[in-house]
Amino acid sequence: MKAQILMVSLFALGLATAVAAETTPKDEPIKPIEAAVVKDAGMVELGKKLYFDPRLSKSGAISCNSCHNLSMGGTDNLQTSIGDHWQQGPINAPTVLNSSMNVAQFWDGRAKDLKAQAGGPIANPGEMAFTHELAIKVLDSIPAYKEEFKTVFKKDAIDIGMVTDAIAAFEETLVTPDSKFDQWLKGDDKALSEKELAGYKLFKDSGCTACHNGAAVGGNSFQKMGVVEPYKTDSKAEGLVAVSKQDADRFKFKVPTLRNVEMTYPYFHDGAAKTLEDAVHTMGQIQLGKKFSDEETGNIVAFLKTLTGKQPDFKLPVMAPSTNDTPRPDPFPKDAAAK
Amino acid sequence: MKAQILMVSLFALGLATAVAAETTPKDEPIKPIEAAVVKDAGMVELGKKLYFDPRLSKSGAISCNSCHNLSMGGTDNLQTSIGDHWQQGPINAPTVLNSSMNVAQFWDGRAKDLKAQAGGPIANPGEMAFTHELAIKVLDSIPAYKEEFKTVFKKDAIDIGMVTDAIAAFEETLVTPDSKFDQWLKGDDKALSEKELAGYKLFKDSGCTACHNGAAVGGNSFQKMGVVEPYKTDSKAEGLVAVSKQDADRFKFKVPTLRNVEMTYPYFHDGAAKTLEDAVHTMGQIQLGKKFSDEETGNIVAFLKTLTGKQPDFKLPVMAPSTNDTPRPDPFPKDAAAK
Repeated sequence: MKAQILMVSLFALGLATAVAAETTPKDEPIKPIEAAVVKDAGMVELGKKLYFDPRLSKSGAISCNSCHNLSMGGTDNLQTSIGDHWQQGPINAPTVLNSSMNVAQFWDGRAKDLKAQAGGPIANPGEMAFTHELAIKVLDSIPAYKEEFKTVFKKDAIDIGMVTDAIAAFEETLVTPDSKFDQWLKGDDKALSEKELAGYKLFKDSGCTACHNGAAVGGNSFQKMGVVEPYKTDSKAEGLVAVSKQDADRFKFKVPTLRNVEMTYPYFHDGAAKTLEDAVHTMGQIQLGKKFSDEETGNIVAFLKTLTGKQPDFKLPVMAPSTNDTPRPDPFPKDAAAK
Repeated sequence: MKAQILMVSLFALGLATAVAAETTPKDEPIKPIEAAVVKDAGMVELGKKLYFDPRLSKSGAISCNSCHNLSMGGTDNLQTSIGDHWQQGPINAPTVLNSSMNVAQFWDGRAKDLKAQAGGPIANPGEMAFTHELAIKVLDSIPAYKEEFKTVFKKDAIDIGMVTDAIAAFEETLVTPDSKFDQWLKGDDKALSEKELAGYKLFKDSGCTACHNGAAVGGNSFQKMGVVEPYKTDSKAEGLVAVSKQDADRFKFKVPTLRNVEMTYPYFHDGAAKTLEDAVHTMGQIQLGKKFSDEETGNIVAFLKTLTGKQPDFKLPVMAPSTNDTPRPDPFPKDAAAK
């Protein structure tokens, strides 16, 4: 009887060891992304509607999803975005995917979190060009929204804090687990090809992981753009200095996440790098003083493409119609025609 | 034994009669909408991606869904749409919902079907401002699209006919069954309130169903806008005459569907009627020579709101990224700045 128990125990131990050997998570500077834990499903659903609702803009035509398109990697894939009345934006729209992991929001970090960010574009005259007051008036005039806000927030009156809370709650669900690289990190040695693995080794050995690390492969620090050589650009953006007012922070930008980077072209705060090859070449040169060969660049790009994870997976929300009391959009103001 | 069979038969007959009485479809000028029958699911999925893909526009920012937003009743809820470089469109964007039932497409009927319509906006300089050649170049540069076209069409080379076939196949699925009114039509007498029923009776007795009939409650004929009184508008659109070149067709427009009309504001080809009450009032006056009282208008509006059916119900499509060979969007052409 004792012998039997011992044998069973040894067998179980053997199995456990075998399983562990196959799935031992790797200790790397990049960490896997875990699936989002939804705290308040009702708030997420409300936030999803708000994210897709163009009535939060002056024109009635621009929603969060216009520039952070969830069909396209959470970006608009433009060098700089198109704002109200086709104004040219000053900076490249960063992806909303995995943005909850960022140390702060916007390239210069001027919003401390997603909630603080969400109100910005709505009221920015160069983006959605609305006001928070009008946004609330719109929502307040639509009974289905009123009801949903009441259910989620247990309050009668809608305010902008609830709007940005709900949008942030939805955005927190926009994480992209299960990339090939994460499968490899979690112990599946066959998840990466030799070329992809060579690319990752070079990425790490060259020092890229000094800034591009953690679960988001970036997003967790501000770094100077142009460490070894100055970065040449037409962009007027100066980064963190605009927030900190510290001269040392001039040209320091939030390190972008490299998750889903295959989908978030073009690259850099000025959107000047059209391809991943361009971006890798420039980063090597101005940040690390390295000139990668075409083969090396190709390997790094192959690695970077393994960072594409599971994209947002949900039904297109349908919004309740406006009512006779809803302020109407104003896409073609009469005075604008004179400009 | 015989008696038993007879009794069972009588009982069955009684049951059948009772069921029939509850669900006898009503014989009305408006017919229920049936759910879409998908003939080729692969083609529908491909068409859905194309419908949402802004890379079919010059700017990289305008997709079919921009002006025919499936979160918002298949329209943009603007008086006239916003085209490339914020150009003001000449006419109100009709809903894509149930558009497969239209006798022809566009307000003037210049496209005979959805396939013929789908190519129009892509190449219209005032809308998506692209060319069919460039659209094909974009799709051809993206391996996932190439593969999907090949699977669906069994051909190696993508052409614009396949693109418009796929978009049309997706649009054919955008029908909205199960409205309250359809439940009533199918025999559920309790589906409509007294007010809604009074509204429908007035709608029918006033002659509205002369044009707004069939499953789409419109969409199946061209009628003169301004039968009893001329319609006053700033719009330069003249309707069917532009296609037929027959003087008698001046100001004849395709009768719009009233399905989901609560969601497809503002109304008429010039988008001049902001509310359903406005639209009912004007139609009564200029088409029928009737002046509806506020109560009558209210009843008709209550009926019209029962025409809102089941909205499109599908997952937001995710598109494969562009490659280094994909023509890049051009939202801010250098020569346009001089304009």
